[in-house]
Amino acid sequence: MRSGEMAKLTQLIDNEVFRAYATYATIVLLKMMLMSLITAYFRMSRKAFVNPEDTASFGKGESAKKYLRTDPSVERVRRGHLNDLENIVPFLGIGLLYALSGPELSTALLHFRIFTGARIAHTFAYLIPLPQPARGLSWAVAYAVTISMAYKVLKTALYL
Amino acid sequence: MRSGEMAKLTQLIDNEVFRAYATYATIVLLKMMLMSLITAYFRMSRKAFVNPEDTASFGKGESAKKYLRTDPSVERVRRGHLNDLENIVPFLGIGLLYALSGPELSTALLHFRIFTGARIAHTFAYLIPLPQPARGLSWAVAYAVTISMAYKVLKTALYL
Amino acid sequence: MRSGEMAKLTQLIDNEVFRAYATYATIVLLKMMLMSLITAYFRMSRKAFVNPEDTASFGKGESAKKYLRTDPSVERVRRGHLNDLENIVPFLGIGLLYALSGPELSTALLHFRIFTGARIAHTFAYLIPLPQPARGLSWAVAYAVTISMAYKVLKTALYL
Repeated sequence: MRSGEMAKLTQLIDNEVFRAYATYATIVLLKMMLMSLITAYFRMSRKAFVNPEDTASFGKGESAKKYLRTDPSVERVRRGHLNDLENIVPFLGIGLLYALSGPELSTALLHFRIFTGARIAHTFAYLIPLPQPARGLSWAVAYAVTISMAYKVLKTALYL
Repeated sequence: MRSGEMAKLTQLIDNEVFRAYATYATIVLLKMMLMSLITAYFRMSRKAFVNPEDTASFGKGESAKKYLRTDPSVERVRRGHLNDLENIVPFLGIGLLYALSGPELSTALLHFRIFTGARIAHTFAYLIPLPQPARGLSWAVAYAVTISMAYKVLKTALYL
Repeated sequence: MRSGEMAKLTQLIDNEVFRAYATYATIVLLKMMLMSLITAYFRMSRKAFVNPEDTASFGKGESAKKYLRTDPSVERVRRGHLNDLENIVPFLGIGLLYALSGPELSTALLHFRIFTGARIAHTFAYLIPLPQPARGLSWAVAYAVTISMAYKVLKTALYL
């Protein structure tokens, strides 16, 4: 690797807006990854599996087949996980472009912090579950933050 | 933030291929985000919900439980949304790397425009719905564009 | 396009760690895209569709309706595809930031290779299917690699 190039890459990660993006994007992705562990926990504690090979350790034939079933808690976590995918993927893409569009550091931090806080609140609202409109509101706040960043990206970079 | 670094970041967004990527990636992500609103619209107009807390405002007990059901229109939008995720995620990742691999501006624009147009067509074909092969063809065109970009990325950057 | 800027972009793709990321991210995304083709293959060979417009070529009315059904092989591929999305999206985001955080080339290659190998093994374990813990282990290895990269990103870039 030529050292001049390495320096340039390091400069990218030295930029404060980019570092803030890297931090919050990583946090929100780790939160999303946590949903896999919560799903696995509920599948095992509720004994509710979907693949026959996952129930083989419970015995053969009918005794294992009864664990091939859906469970409301498992399905709830899975819906939360899919909602994460639907909302965190746009944040990853639009947020990266936003971070590169030269926003004020304080404005960028505001966007990243509100998005991350809203998605963490959304997970609690979904899994506890809290009465509506807790889940709806937390979803809408993160959605609005992403739209605001998309507006800035298009205003700065528009090239059709 | 040191101003020298900021300048370098701004230069990235000043590059025309990168600006084109930023524009079309944002458009296609906004289109995907629209699927959430369409799902919410059908859930409310068809009164078809999945979470008990979402039907609490319709009353208690049995009177609310009847709204916990699936609806063909809701399921159709959800399938379109998942298909977006499956196809737009590869575009985001491969498209970014493609934009950084130094393609001709006109070639890059062609890729981004066809992908975006095909995915918008796919959504109309899925939601109206249009007879096949409308949905299949629009899916295949966007898929082929992504493969073409992946080929350019691997040809330029391959490092195993 | 100003040539100075183009040079800078090209330098990014010249960096060996970034090239390795570009290569493995593209491979793993192409692998994920393959799941769409495998789903389509099973839908057609098993004649198991979900959209009425997809069965129109099999005739009208009841003769076509019988193909609107779920098939265990189709559902298995779809679960593998969703699991890819849940795990490859974090790799794309965290892996990009990791590549920009200045890791040793050999360490970065180790992370990218193990992740890619584990996800390919996961697909085989899911689709054949292999007895557990093959699928669980391959999932866990890729998950652990992503956590390791996230740790490096947060250690290098943390800016809350």
